[in-house]
Amino acid sequence: MPTGLPAANSLVAPDEEGWVWGQIKAEARRDAESEPALASYLYSTILSHSSLERSLSFHLGNKLCSSTLLSTLLYDLFLNAFSSDPSLRSAAVADLRAARERDPACVSYSHCLLNYKGFLACQAHRVAHLLWRQSRRPLALALHSRIANVFAVDIHPAARIGKGILFDHATGVVEGRHRNREQCVDPAPCSLGGTGKVGGDRHPKIGDGVLIGAGATILGNIKIGEGAKVGAGSVVLIDVPPRTTAVGNPARLVGGKEKPSKHEDVPGESMDHTSFISEWSDYII
Amino acid sequence: MPTGLPAANSLVAPDEEGWVWGQIKAEARRDAESEPALASYLYSTILSHSSLERSLSFHLGNKLCSSTLLSTLLYDLFLNAFSSDPSLRSAAVADLRAARERDPACVSYSHCLLNYKGFLACQAHRVAHLLWRQSRRPLALALHSRIANVFAVDIHPAARIGKGILFDHATGVVEGRHRNREQCVDPAPCSLGGTGKVGGDRHPKIGDGVLIGAGATILGNIKIGEGAKVGAGSVVLIDVPPRTTAVGNPARLVGGKEKPSKHEDVPGESMDHTSFISEWSDYII
Amino acid sequence: MPTGLPAANSLVAPDEEGWVWGQIKAEARRDAESEPALASYLYSTILSHSSLERSLSFHLGNKLCSSTLLSTLLYDLFLNAFSSDPSLRSAAVADLRAARERDPACVSYSHCLLNYKGFLACQAHRVAHLLWRQSRRPLALALHSRIANVFAVDIHPAARIGKGILFDHATGVVEGRHRNREQCVDPAPCSLGGTGKVGGDRHPKIGDGVLIGAGATILGNIKIGEGAKVGAGSVVLIDVPPRTTAVGNPARLVGGKEKPSKHEDVPGESMDHTSFISEWSDYII
Amino acid sequence: MPTGLPAANSLVAPDEEGWVWGQIKAEARRDAESEPALASYLYSTILSHSSLERSLSFHLGNKLCSSTLLSTLLYDLFLNAFSSDPSLRSAAVADLRAARERDPACVSYSHCLLNYKGFLACQAHRVAHLLWRQSRRPLALALHSRIANVFAVDIHPAARIGKGILFDHATGVVEGRHRNREQCVDPAPCSLGGTGKVGGDRHPKIGDGVLIGAGATILGNIKIGEGAKVGAGSVVLIDVPPRTTAVGNPARLVGGKEKPSKHEDVPGESMDHTSFISEWSDYII
Amino acid sequence: MPTGLPAANSLVAPDEEGWVWGQIKAEARRDAESEPALASYLYSTILSHSSLERSLSFHLGNKLCSSTLLSTLLYDLFLNAFSSDPSLRSAAVADLRAARERDPACVSYSHCLLNYKGFLACQAHRVAHLLWRQSRRPLALALHSRIANVFAVDIHPAARIGKGILFDHATGVVEGRHRNREQCVDPAPCSLGGTGKVGGDRHPKIGDGVLIGAGATILGNIKIGEGAKVGAGSVVLIDVPPRTTAVGNPARLVGGKEKPSKHEDVPGESMDHTSFISEWSDYII
Amino acid sequence: MPTGLPAANSLVAPDEEGWVWGQIKAEARRDAESEPALASYLYSTILSHSSLERSLSFHLGNKLCSSTLLSTLLYDLFLNAFSSDPSLRSAAVADLRAARERDPACVSYSHCLLNYKGFLACQAHRVAHLLWRQSRRPLALALHSRIANVFAVDIHPAARIGKGILFDHATGVVEGRHRNREQCVDPAPCSLGGTGKVGGDRHPKIGDGVLIGAGATILGNIKIGEGAKVGAGSVVLIDVPPRTTAVGNPARLVGGKEKPSKHEDVPGESMDHTSFISEWSDYII
Repeated sequence: MPTGLPAANSLVAPDEEGWVWGQIKAEARRDAESEPALASYLYSTILSHSSLERSLSFHLGNKLCSSTLLSTLLYDLFLNAFSSDPSLRSAAVADLRAARERDPACVSYSHCLLNYKGFLACQAHRVAHLLWRQSRRPLALALHSRIANVFAVDIHPAARIGKGILFDHATGVVEGRHRNREQCVDPAPCSLGGTGKVGGDRHPKIGDGVLIGAGATILGNIKIGEGAKVGAGSVVLIDVPPRTTAVGNPARLVGGKEKPSKHEDVPGESMDHTSFISEWSDYII
Repeated sequence: MPTGLPAANSLVAPDEEGWVWGQIKAEARRDAESEPALASYLYSTILSHSSLERSLSFHLGNKLCSSTLLSTLLYDLFLNAFSSDPSLRSAAVADLRAARERDPACVSYSHCLLNYKGFLACQAHRVAHLLWRQSRRPLALALHSRIANVFAVDIHPAARIGKGILFDHATGVVEGRHRNREQCVDPAPCSLGGTGKVGGDRHPKIGDGVLIGAGATILGNIKIGEGAKVGAGSVVLIDVPPRTTAVGNPARLVGGKEKPSKHEDVPGESMDHTSFISEWSDYII
Repeated sequence: MPTGLPAANSLVAPDEEGWVWGQIKAEARRDAESEPALASYLYSTILSHSSLERSLSFHLGNKLCSSTLLSTLLYDLFLNAFSSDPSLRSAAVADLRAARERDPACVSYSHCLLNYKGFLACQAHRVAHLLWRQSRRPLALALHSRIANVFAVDIHPAARIGKGILFDHATGVVEGRHRNREQCVDPAPCSLGGTGKVGGDRHPKIGDGVLIGAGATILGNIKIGEGAKVGAGSVVLIDVPPRTTAVGNPARLVGGKEKPSKHEDVPGESMDHTSFISEWSDYII
Repeated sequence: MPTGLPAANSLVAPDEEGWVWGQIKAEARRDAESEPALASYLYSTILSHSSLERSLSFHLGNKLCSSTLLSTLLYDLFLNAFSSDPSLRSAAVADLRAARERDPACVSYSHCLLNYKGFLACQAHRVAHLLWRQSRRPLALALHSRIANVFAVDIHPAARIGKGILFDHATGVVEGRHRNREQCVDPAPCSLGGTGKVGGDRHPKIGDGVLIGAGATILGNIKIGEGAKVGAGSVVLIDVPPRTTAVGNPARLVGGKEKPSKHEDVPGESMDHTSFISEWSDYII
Repeated sequence: MPTGLPAANSLVAPDEEGWVWGQIKAEARRDAESEPALASYLYSTILSHSSLERSLSFHLGNKLCSSTLLSTLLYDLFLNAFSSDPSLRSAAVADLRAARERDPACVSYSHCLLNYKGFLACQAHRVAHLLWRQSRRPLALALHSRIANVFAVDIHPAARIGKGILFDHATGVVEGRHRNREQCVDPAPCSLGGTGKVGGDRHPKIGDGVLIGAGATILGNIKIGEGAKVGAGSVVLIDVPPRTTAVGNPARLVGGKEKPSKHEDVPGESMDHTSFISEWSDYII
Repeated sequence: MPTGLPAANSLVAPDEEGWVWGQIKAEARRDAESEPALASYLYSTILSHSSLERSLSFHLGNKLCSSTLLSTLLYDLFLNAFSSDPSLRSAAVADLRAARERDPACVSYSHCLLNYKGFLACQAHRVAHLLWRQSRRPLALALHSRIANVFAVDIHPAARIGKGILFDHATGVVEGRHRNREQCVDPAPCSLGGTGKVGGDRHPKIGDGVLIGAGATILGNIKIGEGAKVGAGSVVLIDVPPRTTAVGNPARLVGGKEKPSKHEDVPGESMDHTSFISEWSDYII
């Protein structure tokens, strides 16, 4: 799934991960010094950790735990996943860069790491998706349930998402696994006839560099192309081509279904999600 | 309020409750064996309990508690309600069956019981509604507030909902008690003139077997007929006839206001919530 | 920003604050007596406190705390803010009155204080906004993150909101800080050229007495005029003039862009948010 | 095991239980009124409950719970035990009366119920002992471990204790199950030859109306006769006859081993634990 | 009650409090830098606070809270007491200095403030004693119960203790309020005839600069003179003159009852609690 | 420091660790099956873990955590220590075997692992001691403080303890670091002249296979020889030779100081702690 985002384009190089982690620590150190009331929080979540994966595992474990799913269990689960699968770490770094570069409200990497529920939900989802692919479905579903509860971002563990994703003040809902006559409701992998299409591919695929607006809902076996934008509150039921924008409920493509407007620029450089407003809202209201 | 759903049609027979509970325990036992990391969670929520009502009361108490509303208090409240009112238990069983049979993402009864916030919100709402009818309104409202906070499903305690309801990845909002000149804001029961209409009936009525999409909002003294479907993200302000579908914001009936399309099939058997997509979205976008 | 609401019109007089606090205590005492199961909750949140600011600080501290942000730290933060800034208290009183007078589902002041997440999010936001203006941005953002997580109401700390605001069963999203070429992503105050306009004013301004429906989203540097109404689930991208109503996704003004219908009455007296339904929905569906 | 204590002498009559519970509620109501800061605590622990057994089960569940043993589970366990076995309730009432009548520091029944860790440990121990006798030994031992941790009172679940026991500012340690050649370390019940003596009876027996001083330790298969007193910090390794006093480390009987001083009075009426001080300490120091 | 300790001799001067607080912050800053794993803890307990009284109130509130007595309530209680009564602060400073100067295991002021349960129990006791004197006895007793549970140091709220007290690895038990015929068990103040002696003075008085060994028990209306030492595990039932040492169970005065050995030196300068060991233990064993 | 205990004599072989862990899992599985109410606890603490070190780290982390020292931080700390230092694991195995073989109240390895606060305090102490030797003293002292608070077993982090230690119903206090003129109170390592004796060696040394009775206190730079026994409630101020017994306060050697009775048998085989009772208590009382 190619993307125009240089940072998210490929496996993030280890030194990029190191560089981002260095930035995060520097930001946290600066904030801890200027705001003693926040220092304890910054030390426990960032400054006491030796790596991004430990910090993220700690933070997710403490965010997602409940009285019946202890933080230590979740911490262990996340740390194992992030330690053994470098692609999870590189995706996290790409998401951090996307937020930092594309969202003007994102004042620092550490701000995104600590406070962006869209970012946190995304990282936890990738671990749930890994468990799903390993056929550890009850655990994947339990994790999914906690993510939806805590971050109000509902992504089915079977859904595939790219890198460099930006959930804008995320309360987006990404849903998959629709009904078919030959529905597959068993946690065991489906093998329905020759194609495997029905059982295997009923969930959305979110391309690299996609921007999903607040409160958006994306339903069914559809593709959101790389660099596409989904407007706030939109309900998307159809494919959205790369670098186009879908808005409204139900969502329409800005510029029309036949020939939607394309963003010409590289999304990672200049993508914004308000430039379509004057064009579109004048035309509708 | 009749419904096409056999399971939800009438009071669930005690042996049906027993059968579902047996399924839940068998599923949990299988999952606990295959996934030791989840076994503690499954034992505390399901396998250590002797009945569905105890398991559900335990789970809701631990989900909805806060530092000022202790889990033991809530556990007691739920257990008393579920033990003394069999209709609450039969509605829970009907909802479990609806989720298991109609939602392809629902891989097991235990998955629904543990993880579906729509299901859990529904069961807790019915207890809040019972308290409301018993004029224990401060407690009903406090419970309602916790349900809305924890499950992000906002159902006014005065709202009546049927059985076999399916909140699809629920973040639905069901609202009632609108403003009238003779508004009734006192927690004591209203008696406003002869009709009682204004004070008594300002909240939605959700029929049996209704499917409510993610992020839907249903407002005012309206009826959602049995077996109807409300699309994701819809804002419904008008009655929805039985077995019809309302989508959009504001919601329209698929097929038009005058002669909406009816699902011919029995909803419990083949109801799906994506079949209308091609028809509807092509027509709009 | 003038408003028709007498209560919210000016700085609430100290005796008004005292009067409302007296009402709250009387209501809580009555409820504690009639419902022993709730008495512990009512004493810890209301009846054990000597003033509205202490009760509110306690309640917000316990609601917003997490395992890494302790309740005692937050309690201290809120109490300092509410004690030193009377305008925060008068805004809280105006919001309480708006909810009590305009929302028929609001049965008492204490009900709003304890259970309305829109109300609670609003009060906590004003403290976050104060921190933002004091350039304590990391703390403002951390607080904002907790508010969005716990109350599902997402208001950027830079957003300015008036008094007498009513978030109706709030899951509204108010967002600011959009992208500009000369974007300002540094936590330090911006000084971009001579005007300062771009860096300083990219967030919504919500006037006094505004009613924001459930699930609404308000985006960008726009104004919602005093006494205006935003329909449930609406996505607002344009200015909404005073005393007009915006509904839908994307939101349109009821009555048309050119000459929107105005509420003639004083909003605080008779404003309702369902009277436009027949007119509007008939016309659309 | 007869005792001189009228209250503790026999099964407490139901109306005695009712009378004590009435006193407790009246005291708690008075204290809640005079001390609002404590009212929440008093409502949650006492005033919101309909019976002594519910209040006690709630309080013990919340005191003894941990992150891996939830309060709801323990509440259930205690409530089942206290509801089904009236002798547990009558023993609790006898202990309450002993504390109230014999301990001058005990200012009220409710004070003892809420704050006396010796009292609370005793009630929880009796439930652990019941589990032990039902051969539910792992649960009995887990409960024992929590009791020892939380209340610093270590009573082996196999130990038998009477009624009307008073642990004075209890940090007493009561230990049993010493080593024998034919030791019985299996959780299954022992059957060692005909007598059963070795396996069955290696723990202390504490008679009715015994007063155990702070920090006392009682070791092995010994009897503390009814109405006896064990001095603070004493280590008792030998039988203590009824109505005598043992003090020191190792403990000696006041008055000498051959002819210990007897309290002539009825312990429940005039028993005190300082009258022996002048006699004894003058003689030693 | 005079004492040889210069620091504890009189009301600690404000600048002494400031000096100690400065030391504590400097130590905590040094430790936070050298041990990132501890930094979060040090910031939340010390470095985020603006004064010793805030730090101590925060720490005690979080240590002593339970599921039914919230940390915010206790924080408020302690902060009010420490803010309004300077003698509580000066006693805390004297205790800190005593620990730092006399206990070789005390490596820093901050170590004592954070980790010495004897120190923490002492500070909380003084607040409980203040409540007792204000006739807020139910609250004093509830606080006492938490102190005894959490710190395993049991000091009756009626007991008077001096300044510069050192509980050595404290599990000491200080008990008062023994039985008298005219016992005063009512929480209301006693007025028994003209003298008030019986009701008012049944508890120990601990002089300034006293050292209480681990596991010691002090019982009844007795005086421990200033600068005295009580050996570990001792049970003290008689007066201990100033600058003498009591050891054993029951405790004897080292040097004999008639002419006990006196420490000639100023306790604050050279007091140790092992110098008597060779003398005493050779003589006994 | 040689010992008669075969198991504790040398580094426990890896397969011994594996064998004990296998026993623990088998016991836990058996108990979980027979007692569903305990199964959740057993899965979270034992059965979900892949090794003894993970189970122990999880259990200690959850036991010792507080609102300001999070369980995830402690879990990490323990797991790192137990993973990198095999001698910590072998000592834990030796302690488990000592408890299982010598304490008749210890019905299973899993019972000791989960419930014996003496065992748990010992394992946590060894980690604190490791930190102390690594000059991470603030962390060592903070950990020590939590151990003393939670398990009521107070062992100074500088104290050296052997293997195969059995704290009998442990509330023992082991104290070190007494006062010297050249006291070393700095957290940095001491270097006091040529001998280093004063600064370096002021704490007790506990030999292998020592049995420490309930409530015992051991003070100063003394040695408890291997296989020695310390009676319950004893206060030990002098060396205790190997295989001898010290009892009382202050403690005397059974058999007299000059020629104490020796246990002839191998302690691990037949050591008991009550055989001296008849001899000793008859002789004293």
